[in-house]
Amino acid sequence: MQQKLNELKAILAEVSDLNAAAGVLGWDQQTYMPRAGAEARGQQMGTIGKIAHETFVSDRVGKLLDQLKGAFPEGSDEAALVRVTKRDYERRTRVPASFVVEQAEVTAAAHEGWVEARQKSDFSIFEPHLAKVLNLTRRYIDFFPKADHPYDTLLDDFEPGMKTAEVQAIFSELRKKQVKLIKAIAAKRQVDDSFLHLKYSEAKQRAFGEKVITAFGVDWNKFRQDKSPHPFCTSFSVNDVRITTRFNETFLNPALFGTMHETGHAFYDGGVNPAYERTSLGGGASLGIHESQSRMWENIVGRSLPFWEHFYPTLQKTFPAQLGNVSLKKFYKAVNKVEPSLIRVEADEATYNMHIMLRLEIEIAMVEGAVALKDLPALWNAKMKEYLGILPPNDAQGVLQDIHWSFAGIGYFSTYSLGNIISAQLWERINKDIPDLAAQIRKGKFDSLLGWLRAHIHVHGRKYDPQELVQQVTGSRIDPKPYLRYLETKFSDVYGL
Amino acid sequence: MQQKLNELKAILAEVSDLNAAAGVLGWDQQTYMPRAGAEARGQQMGTIGKIAHETFVSDRVGKLLDQLKGAFPEGSDEAALVRVTKRDYERRTRVPASFVVEQAEVTAAAHEGWVEARQKSDFSIFEPHLAKVLNLTRRYIDFFPKADHPYDTLLDDFEPGMKTAEVQAIFSELRKKQVKLIKAIAAKRQVDDSFLHLKYSEAKQRAFGEKVITAFGVDWNKFRQDKSPHPFCTSFSVNDVRITTRFNETFLNPALFGTMHETGHAFYDGGVNPAYERTSLGGGASLGIHESQSRMWENIVGRSLPFWEHFYPTLQKTFPAQLGNVSLKKFYKAVNKVEPSLIRVEADEATYNMHIMLRLEIEIAMVEGAVALKDLPALWNAKMKEYLGILPPNDAQGVLQDIHWSFAGIGYFSTYSLGNIISAQLWERINKDIPDLAAQIRKGKFDSLLGWLRAHIHVHGRKYDPQELVQQVTGSRIDPKPYLRYLETKFSDVYGL
Repeated sequence: MQQKLNELKAILAEVSDLNAAAGVLGWDQQTYMPRAGAEARGQQMGTIGKIAHETFVSDRVGKLLDQLKGAFPEGSDEAALVRVTKRDYERRTRVPASFVVEQAEVTAAAHEGWVEARQKSDFSIFEPHLAKVLNLTRRYIDFFPKADHPYDTLLDDFEPGMKTAEVQAIFSELRKKQVKLIKAIAAKRQVDDSFLHLKYSEAKQRAFGEKVITAFGVDWNKFRQDKSPHPFCTSFSVNDVRITTRFNETFLNPALFGTMHETGHAFYDGGVNPAYERTSLGGGASLGIHESQSRMWENIVGRSLPFWEHFYPTLQKTFPAQLGNVSLKKFYKAVNKVEPSLIRVEADEATYNMHIMLRLEIEIAMVEGAVALKDLPALWNAKMKEYLGILPPNDAQGVLQDIHWSFAGIGYFSTYSLGNIISAQLWERINKDIPDLAAQIRKGKFDSLLGWLRAHIHVHGRKYDPQELVQQVTGSRIDPKPYLRYLETKFSDVYGL
Repeated sequence: MQQKLNELKAILAEVSDLNAAAGVLGWDQQTYMPRAGAEARGQQMGTIGKIAHETFVSDRVGKLLDQLKGAFPEGSDEAALVRVTKRDYERRTRVPASFVVEQAEVTAAAHEGWVEARQKSDFSIFEPHLAKVLNLTRRYIDFFPKADHPYDTLLDDFEPGMKTAEVQAIFSELRKKQVKLIKAIAAKRQVDDSFLHLKYSEAKQRAFGEKVITAFGVDWNKFRQDKSPHPFCTSFSVNDVRITTRFNETFLNPALFGTMHETGHAFYDGGVNPAYERTSLGGGASLGIHESQSRMWENIVGRSLPFWEHFYPTLQKTFPAQLGNVSLKKFYKAVNKVEPSLIRVEADEATYNMHIMLRLEIEIAMVEGAVALKDLPALWNAKMKEYLGILPPNDAQGVLQDIHWSFAGIGYFSTYSLGNIISAQLWERINKDIPDLAAQIRKGKFDSLLGWLRAHIHVHGRKYDPQELVQQVTGSRIDPKPYLRYLETKFSDVYGL
C-alpha cells in the first residue's frame, strides 16, 4: 500500500507543481506582465491547466484511489489524503471535458455581456447570458448525485460538506439581529471620517502597512507584497506566499485594511504542514475558513482599539499633517464607521453580511427556478431596501455590480459571511486560551495569536472539512452568535448604543 | 501532409507553452521570488522541464518528422520548421534521460566545488569536479555521429552548422591584429575615466536608461525592465520580452551599457515573425547572432560619437554635478577606454575577444585531452600574459573566474566573440543600405536601424543557420575583417593611433 501511496503522491506532486506554475503565471499577469503579453499568457495557462487536468483525472489515479481506500487508519494524514483526493477526483471526473469547454465559451461571452450591461446599466443585455449560465449551472448539478437541495452541489465546491439548509439557518439567525443593529446605529449620530479621505502618499501607506504585517509575524524570506488592480493572495509553496495591494491616495482604508486582510490569507497558506506540500492536503479547508483568517486580521485585530493603541502613534508620525490633530478615539471610530451602502466590496463590518444574504437568497431562488431572471433587478432592489434601507439608483450599482455570475461563480458568496462568523467564533476560543491577548496586542505583540492560529487552523491544511474543523477547535459547529456578540460589543462602543 | 503538420504544430505549441512557463518561473526566481521559495521553484521547473521533454521526444513526434521530411518546398517556412525541429529532436533523443540526470548531479556538485574553489582561490578543489564534467562532455560527444572535430558537436548546440575549424580560422586572423592593436593603444597616453566612478543614483541611471531604449524603439506594451543580480533578457512570446539590469551606484557603465545590451537581445526576441510563435522557429538563429544584436546596440551604437552627440546633453542634465564639466569628447573617450584586465565580463571592446580566444583554445585542448587539468592554471596565466600582457595574481581572478565549466557549459564561449564579429559585418552592410545612419543617430533617430534589423535578421527567427543568414545578408560568411576595421577606426580616434 505504501508503494501505491507513493505512486499517487508522485502524480499529485506533478499536478501540484503544474498548478503552482499556473499560479506564478497568474500572479505575473496581475502584477508585472506587459499588457500585450495577455494572449500568449492565456495559451500558456491553458496548456498547463490542460496537462494538470489530464494528469489528475487519469484512470491510474482512479485505480490507485480505489485500491488505497480504507487502507490507512481513520484520522491519519494518509487516510485524509486519500479521502480529499478522492473527492477532488470525483468532482473533476464527473464533469466531461466537453462541458468545461462549453462553459469556457459561454462565460467568455457572458463576461463581455456583463461588462457592457454594467457600463450601460442595462440588465436586459446581461439577462440572456445569465440564462445560459444558469442553464449550465443546472446541468453541472445534474452530473452529481442528487443532494438535499440542488444548491448543495454548488456550495460543496467551496465549503466541502456544508449544506444549503445549514447556511440558511445560520443566516436566518443573523439577519434579524443584524438588521436591528444597523437600525440602532442609524439612529445615532454618525461618526466623522473625513480625515481618512485626505491625501495619503502611496509610499508612506506602503511603508506603514509593511510595519504592521511585519509586527503580525510576516517572514519576508517567504513572503512578498506587490501592487495589482485587484488585491489577492497567492502561494506557490508554504515558503513562497505573496499578497498584492491596491493603493488609493485619497482614502487610507483600502490599502491599510486590504494589506492586513491578504496577510491573513497569507498566514494560512504559509502555515500549512510542510508534509502536505505537493499533495491534495495543501491549501485551506474551505473558502469560509480562509476568509475567517483574513477577516480576523483585517477586522477583529486591525479595527480593534488595542491594535490602534499600539499603532496609532506611528501612523500619526507617518501622516502628521493628516492625523496629527485626530485623537485615537476619533480615528478608531472612523475606521469602524457604519453606513449602509450600495456596493458590497466597500461595505463595513456591520452591513457586509446583508449584501451576502441578499445574494444567497437570490442565487437559491435562481437555482430553484423560483424567480424569473427578468425580475432580478426588482428583487435585488426590494431586498436592498428591506435589509439596508437604501435603493440602488441603477442596475450598475445594484444587480449588475458583481462579476461572479458572469463566470458561473454561483455558490460561493455565502463563504464571505461564513468567514466573518467563523472568525468571531475562533476569536472567543482564542481569548479563552490566551487570556491577556488584548494586552499583548496593545503592546504590538502578535506571536501568541499567530502561533495559536498556526497550531489550530493553518497546520491542518485541507485535512478536515470546515464544520469538522470548527467543531474540533471551538466545540461547536458554525454558529453566528459569537459574531453577533462581537458586532454588538464593538458598535455599542463606537456608536454608544 | 497539412494535417500531419498541424498535429506536429499542436505538440510544438504545447512544448513552447511549457518552456515559456518555465521561463516565467526562471524570470521570477531571478527578480522577485522570496529567497525561501527556491526549493519549491526547483521542483516546479523540474516537473515542467520533464513534461516538456517527454512531450517533445515522443515517438509520435519522431514519426511525424519522418513523414513530413521533404514534404514542403525548399526554402518554405514549413520545410524550415521540419528541418529545425528534426535537428532539435535528434539532439534531444540521442542523449538518454539517465545521462541528463547524471549530468544534473555532477554539475550540482561541481557548482558547489567551483564556488568553494573560487572563494579559496584554490583550483585543486575544482579540479576533480572538472575532471568529471569533462568526462561527461566526452560521453555527450559520443552520443552523436563523429564530426570533423569532437568540439564541433559541442559548438553545434549553440552555433548550428558551425565548425571548430571555421572558428579557429576566424580567431586566428583576429588574434594577431588585435594583439597588435592592444599594444599600440598601450603605448599611448591613457584616457581619464575617473568621473565615471563618482556617485550616480540608481533611480536617475534607470530613468536615463529608459529614455535611451525608448528612443531605440522599445514598445513598453510588450516589454519591461527589472533588476536582478545578473542581467539577462528573456521572452515568453514576441509580445512579452523582458530585460533585467544591475545597477552600480559608483560606476556609470554597467547599467548604462548593460541596458542597451539586453535591449539588443530583446529586439531580436520580440522581432521574430509572429507566425513562428509556439513553433521551433521562434527565438534566435544562434547565440552568436543573438550576441551580434546586443553588442551592436551596446557598442557600435551606444559607444559611438553620434550617439553621444545626441544623448550627452541629456546625461549631463541628469548628472550635472558629475558630468557638468566633462566635455563630450572626454566622455566619449572615457566610455571607450581600453585597458587589459583580468576579468572577462568587465573587459572593454578591444580586449574582450582575447579573453574568449584564450578560453576557446583551452576548451579545445581539454576536449582533445591535450592538456592535463592540473596544468590549466599555468596555461591560463601564460595565455593571459601573451595576449593581454598581464598576469592574474591568483586563480580566483584567473582560471576560476567563469561559472561555465561548472555547469558543463563547454562549447559556447566563442559565440561571444562571434557576436562582436558579426555585429561589425552587419554594420557595414547597414551603412550601405542606410547611408545617412550616423546623421540619424546624431538626431536620436533609430527607427531605420531597428527596421533594417527586423527585416533582415529578427523576423527570420531560427529559419536560417547562422552562416547562412550572415551570407544571405552581407554576401559573405562570418569574417573578422569588418570588426578589425571597426576597432582600428574607433581606437585610432580615441587614442590617436
